[in-house]
Amino acid sequence: MKLCRFDDNRLGVVSDDQVHDVTDVLAGLPAMQYPYPMFDALIASLPDLRGEIERLAKSARAVPLASCRLLSPVANPGKIVAAPVNYQKHLQEVRKDANLHHGNMINEIERAGLFLKATSSLVGQADGVHLVHTDRRNDHEVELAVVIGKRAKNVTREAALSYVAGYCIGLDITIRGPEERSFRKSPDSYTVLGPWLVTADELPDPSSLDLSIDVSGAARQRSNTSDLILDVPALIAFASSFYTLNPGDILLTGTPEGVGPIEPGDVMTATIQRIGTMNVAVSAA
Amino acid sequence: MKLCRFDDNRLGVVSDDQVHDVTDVLAGLPAMQYPYPMFDALIASLPDLRGEIERLAKSARAVPLASCRLLSPVANPGKIVAAPVNYQKHLQEVRKDANLHHGNMINEIERAGLFLKATSSLVGQADGVHLVHTDRRNDHEVELAVVIGKRAKNVTREAALSYVAGYCIGLDITIRGPEERSFRKSPDSYTVLGPWLVTADELPDPSSLDLSIDVSGAARQRSNTSDLILDVPALIAFASSFYTLNPGDILLTGTPEGVGPIEPGDVMTATIQRIGTMNVAVSAA
Repeated sequence: MKLCRFDDNRLGVVSDDQVHDVTDVLAGLPAMQYPYPMFDALIASLPDLRGEIERLAKSARAVPLASCRLLSPVANPGKIVAAPVNYQKHLQEVRKDANLHHGNMINEIERAGLFLKATSSLVGQADGVHLVHTDRRNDHEVELAVVIGKRAKNVTREAALSYVAGYCIGLDITIRGPEERSFRKSPDSYTVLGPWLVTADELPDPSSLDLSIDVSGAARQRSNTSDLILDVPALIAFASSFYTLNPGDILLTGTPEGVGPIEPGDVMTATIQRIGTMNVAVSAA
Repeated sequence: MKLCRFDDNRLGVVSDDQVHDVTDVLAGLPAMQYPYPMFDALIASLPDLRGEIERLAKSARAVPLASCRLLSPVANPGKIVAAPVNYQKHLQEVRKDANLHHGNMINEIERAGLFLKATSSLVGQADGVHLVHTDRRNDHEVELAVVIGKRAKNVTREAALSYVAGYCIGLDITIRGPEERSFRKSPDSYTVLGPWLVTADELPDPSSLDLSIDVSGAARQRSNTSDLILDVPALIAFASSFYTLNPGDILLTGTPEGVGPIEPGDVMTATIQRIGTMNVAVSAA
């Protein structure tokens, strides 16, 4: 199932070029008093709501996908975890370019660990990316994004995929420079998630997906998730050995070679096999 | 005003050794449907609720502070932002100790930027710290914590303090090692906030506060916020030049010299002048 959020917090099931509006299912999520949950209530409830979503989708009003303003498929992530250089060729690319590594040691991922992006940086395809510090180089990074479906702590590599709710395309927009990754990758709109969530039952094996990004029509990144240094199960096991992953937490799996600058006026076209394609406009903040 | 959260999500006003239970004021926060706000609704509403809190506190049931189980004063922070080496003497300490810097360059803070801690790492005094990876060195770091009161983007140093809701003691617990700070400082319970929120009207100037921490009775860190390299207004201006700060976002201002290891069985006693003291037990996860 391809589940999208669109327009004014509506929920939809994507089928070909139509979106079936199943917003009524959200009435099944209880009204909450402060303090609110620190995880995504919709993602946590997906197993319970799944039958109702499928039932509603059959008779739901269908609207053309092209007319929908697509939001981030996850509304309330507790954290956004991201893998640094996790493709061998990107590691080589970063190591040889002083403009990218700025004198910092680039460690392999097991040594570097994972990093966080601010949840306030999260937007959907329709929001677009709004660049800050345009005097510095701002880069696109296309990544397979994993959405965690249930609480995960110290999970094994073997069990890891059973904790996944689904997959999206993720863009990890990055200001180049010397600062900690969690700072220069966290401006507002620097994490794009979309176009929708492909639930894990529809994509049981994320280990060999083509992924790509074009910028204003020019090819930039072309790779396949089979080239990941730490694959999806290994990343979930690694992350959950340090902290608890909660429903709706987003795991960006790292970007392949071919990162490059984006400028106001560009349009990024990102595609991941079996997920879809999203077009994201770039402007100045 | 000293505002605490305690026991089963109760809200209290601390006065001497008593807590006046003003939980009824939370009924003024509306029940919310998914998606929930990505900021702390209580902190955002404090200016509106302040009068009612003070009115209720006068007639409220008082319970002994010693009998209260103190929770994190902020329940729903959108992000926890922290300053790396921001005291000159701590910078010197880190630079000369290979066990601390592990071969990484220690940049001064303007170059290193700020880092994020996972909101899933946040606990209150009563929860205690539960160490993971106890084969590695786990350190205490005591810090002045700033709680943002209203949306802040590109604010000037001069205006910065008007965006502060109040102050707490923060403990930035840290696994030493080579990984990104946002990873090894984010295990569950590695951010302690407490014992309560001292509202900014009661502490208009955070620039010369003694802060200290003892571990199991032995003095470890002794400093004053006047030794900060980037002071509170500069940190808010710096952070808000990269991303939006929202109500309830927590800013940990950095730790002074004297960091050292903690072990299961230890009790940390942290004090900041004009805020208070909190005792935090350390155990193995």
